[in-house]
Amino acid sequence: MEHPNSDPPQDRLTRQMDFLLEIDKLKSVLRRNRLADNSRRENTAEHSWHLVMFIAVLAEYVPGIHDISKAILLGAIHDLVEIDAGDTFFWDAKGYEDKRDRESKAAQRIFGLLPADQAQTFRALWEEFEEAQTPEALLANAADRLAPVLLNTHSGGVSWKENGITPAMIRQKMTIIGKASPQLGHFLELLIHEAQQRGSLDYDRPGL
Amino acid sequence: MEHPNSDPPQDRLTRQMDFLLEIDKLKSVLRRNRLADNSRRENTAEHSWHLVMFIAVLAEYVPGIHDISKAILLGAIHDLVEIDAGDTFFWDAKGYEDKRDRESKAAQRIFGLLPADQAQTFRALWEEFEEAQTPEALLANAADRLAPVLLNTHSGGVSWKENGITPAMIRQKMTIIGKASPQLGHFLELLIHEAQQRGSLDYDRPGL
Repeated sequence: MEHPNSDPPQDRLTRQMDFLLEIDKLKSVLRRNRLADNSRRENTAEHSWHLVMFIAVLAEYVPGIHDISKAILLGAIHDLVEIDAGDTFFWDAKGYEDKRDRESKAAQRIFGLLPADQAQTFRALWEEFEEAQTPEALLANAADRLAPVLLNTHSGGVSWKENGITPAMIRQKMTIIGKASPQLGHFLELLIHEAQQRGSLDYDRPGL
Repeated sequence: MEHPNSDPPQDRLTRQMDFLLEIDKLKSVLRRNRLADNSRRENTAEHSWHLVMFIAVLAEYVPGIHDISKAILLGAIHDLVEIDAGDTFFWDAKGYEDKRDRESKAAQRIFGLLPADQAQTFRALWEEFEEAQTPEALLANAADRLAPVLLNTHSGGVSWKENGITPAMIRQKMTIIGKASPQLGHFLELLIHEAQQRGSLDYDRPGL
């Protein structure tokens, strides 16, 4: 983080605490997928923690990672916009039409709670995740795709089944995993195979 | 993270994924304190995410922070042992008697799921958090104390009231906040004052 800017010191810390209080709301944003034990739906705050752990553990597979703390922060903050914009289901094409606009407004308000220098840093991190071009952003995006596949595989694939998701759809929407790392791309194939064996995911039916 | 060790590559990734699946259980460990909106108890995974954000936002107040990614990871992993050992309530003196022993066994098992080099790295991070000596560990510990105070202040102090916690007890158990940073120590006083004004926390009664 940058050094304190020109805010009076106490105002600065108050703004930071206001932000930290506001983002508590991310714990009440529900995602479609369920925990691995299928006990309930996952919320976005605990997903974001899991993502931090995926990024820390799997960083070695993505070439060119220079700044692991940036990669971790990309994971920790990329879904903060859901406090205002809600979780857009990964497979919801209609929701994705105005996703960018809704989330950009949310980023403006939520990061804007912070002192100006930190607001700018966090906003830039959020943009970097969305653009998915740097090694750190590729890692964070790949982890963000892999995490729900791992959970769906073990929780019976409830959200896949509810929405008619096929292996072909998963492969098509998750090419960024292989782009970030061939090893992780290969692991996605192993997970798809395991999900099929467990009955969490259908087999593709050619000709349909 | 270190580079891959001598495990065959696919075994290594499988171990890492087994670890990432196992730690999903942290989402089912409940803490005593409640969310800021008092809607439910907080779980340890979402607390760990919140802690990552506290650490990222407040790092500037702790002198001598050289490695922000380490500070963040200390926050992200320090409660993983609760998967086996459960959450020991901060004010539970009896629970604290065997906390270290229970958590040490848990660390052995849970970090031991990882490849040896990462298991060693994560175990060392967990020890560093527990010892609370380095600037990064002081920051992570201070954040770990501040986070529930912020939530209790805004959620009516339910877990404080259930357990008869007084401002004097808070000050006594949270000296590490001021040790990490005088500004954060001052902010704790502001929070205690706000909690009292909101009726979330009693006033100390001298002479009782």
